[in-house]
Amino acid sequence: MEIRELGEFKLIERILRQFKTDSPDVIKGIGDDASVTRLDDSRCLLTTTDMLLEGIHFSLLYVPAYLLGKKAVSVSLSDIAAMGGMPKFLLTSVAVPGNISTEFMDLFYRGVKERADEFSMPLIGGNTSSSNGGVIVEVIVIGEALTAEVVYRHGAKPGDIIYTTGFLGDSALGLKIWKARGDKPVTDPFMRDAMLEHIDPVPRVKEGRLIAERKIATAMTDISDGLILDLRHLADESGVGARVYVSEIPLSTAMKRHIINNPDGIMLSLTGGEDYELLFTAPPDMKTMIEELSKEVNLPITAIGEMVQIEEGLKVIDKEGAELKIFNEGFEHFKSYENQN
Amino acid sequence: MEIRELGEFKLIERILRQFKTDSPDVIKGIGDDASVTRLDDSRCLLTTTDMLLEGIHFSLLYVPAYLLGKKAVSVSLSDIAAMGGMPKFLLTSVAVPGNISTEFMDLFYRGVKERADEFSMPLIGGNTSSSNGGVIVEVIVIGEALTAEVVYRHGAKPGDIIYTTGFLGDSALGLKIWKARGDKPVTDPFMRDAMLEHIDPVPRVKEGRLIAERKIATAMTDISDGLILDLRHLADESGVGARVYVSEIPLSTAMKRHIINNPDGIMLSLTGGEDYELLFTAPPDMKTMIEELSKEVNLPITAIGEMVQIEEGLKVIDKEGAELKIFNEGFEHFKSYENQN
Repeated sequence: MEIRELGEFKLIERILRQFKTDSPDVIKGIGDDASVTRLDDSRCLLTTTDMLLEGIHFSLLYVPAYLLGKKAVSVSLSDIAAMGGMPKFLLTSVAVPGNISTEFMDLFYRGVKERADEFSMPLIGGNTSSSNGGVIVEVIVIGEALTAEVVYRHGAKPGDIIYTTGFLGDSALGLKIWKARGDKPVTDPFMRDAMLEHIDPVPRVKEGRLIAERKIATAMTDISDGLILDLRHLADESGVGARVYVSEIPLSTAMKRHIINNPDGIMLSLTGGEDYELLFTAPPDMKTMIEELSKEVNLPITAIGEMVQIEEGLKVIDKEGAELKIFNEGFEHFKSYENQN
Repeated sequence: MEIRELGEFKLIERILRQFKTDSPDVIKGIGDDASVTRLDDSRCLLTTTDMLLEGIHFSLLYVPAYLLGKKAVSVSLSDIAAMGGMPKFLLTSVAVPGNISTEFMDLFYRGVKERADEFSMPLIGGNTSSSNGGVIVEVIVIGEALTAEVVYRHGAKPGDIIYTTGFLGDSALGLKIWKARGDKPVTDPFMRDAMLEHIDPVPRVKEGRLIAERKIATAMTDISDGLILDLRHLADESGVGARVYVSEIPLSTAMKRHIINNPDGIMLSLTGGEDYELLFTAPPDMKTMIEELSKEVNLPITAIGEMVQIEEGLKVIDKEGAELKIFNEGFEHFKSYENQN
């Protein structure tokens, strides 16, 4: 059987089964946004790694070297944010063809440095290699947290409210515009915002820390593969079901405009991925604290549904109150790309 | 300017300059076999990452999936060994084309698991991705050490003796045979050993730990790029010169036989790389302790030269006592490959 028939998530399940560990130092291994390992009696280490490949995860047609560096760091920072952790150290491996210019590398590392500096995170290692394919970037972020404060994908309970930070779908919309525009300039400032959202996402590190510190969330993850797919992972890990209301999804002006002419456009918010917003669940009595947090960080935090009994499964309810069937919940590697956003 | 004109090491220097850090948590950042960061008053964390690309670092014509997994882990373990550390956790990212078989992945992870289990090192994370080029593997090993015991590339002094574990050149000789053999079977058992040495190197973790614990070495690194190039890095970091005697290089039976018919064959031991042996320096009065260690671990540890004043530079002395000029000291990425071993 080929990997593309199995798909990414079944592959990960296979790996998981093979690598079960009973090490007392491993608090959470494979299967969350970052691994959690014991540091001492109160602290733990968070480790996450992401590989970005040209032609799969990004195109140099849309992403300039500087923003590629910045985004690569953001993607891994988002995983630390999703655990409620504090980023500490950065490692970056880069493989590039020999004909890439030194200017490209300088700009790439300038982007890496800018994002790393924002979070006082020194680059402590990595490696450089030649590639006979395209540009390949691996970013590793090591973070720290108080073990009692870490928020996992598991922990959500029926009755918990589902929240998301920011707006959903802009990154996927932005990518769509990048692909469609050819050499025509895009003048609509809102659409330009969405394009920027795709190539320069902001990791929600501060927000993740506050959510963890104040013990607001019962479960949390970031939206990288797409809202519905990431919610499914969170629901599965928690052993519960979920219900999301399309009418409640927070949309930017760009997405609202896009949907006027494209009734199916909402799918970008549900399954588009790469939003790098935080998706978390919290008991109903956390409502006021969440509203206060939202004001404090000046970022919308929106209730979009609730967790339900596992028997109800995961349902998306459209504006008419009917169930919206979703055939492709988000991005999965190895599955044939034509069917994906 | 293109990266291939600059070369890997000048590129790393550029990155180093850009990313200087004064964080009190960073004991050693970029520029050693692994980064060293503060854990608490006595312990530190060691982190290393290596990216292996099909067509650059390995060929699936020679390396079966199972040994690729095993070797990828060994390469990073060797970096932890070179610091005298204890491996703790493993993360692996893998990108493969969608038409790779699930059997390939199962075998690859079986190899990863076998080597990881030998060192009681659980796999705690990583990711899987599709690739539109070949197979790409990134291995991250997180280790631990007592801060006072870590051995760096710096620290060697004039008068220190240079030692290497094991035999040098077998990996490069093995690769040569793999490339040359076509579909002809290799029957010479010694040459078969060299071929295996290339695809299944043993990381010297135990030896590195003992060298560190007993405070034998003043400086240490592993031989991955080639003896002379790795020695140059160690000498540069220590601010001293070095003198290596060709007649003292430890050679396996395979290498000895190879040299009989190929007088230049010794270059494989000097610059071939991928030996994954430990190269370290120690004061002359450590001789007895090193001999005892060698017996204890049942592995040759051979004095091959001595560190000298920086003004003398790095010299390789041939069997006639003359200086051997070496134009290509080892493997450097981006430099044109035709000139490399």
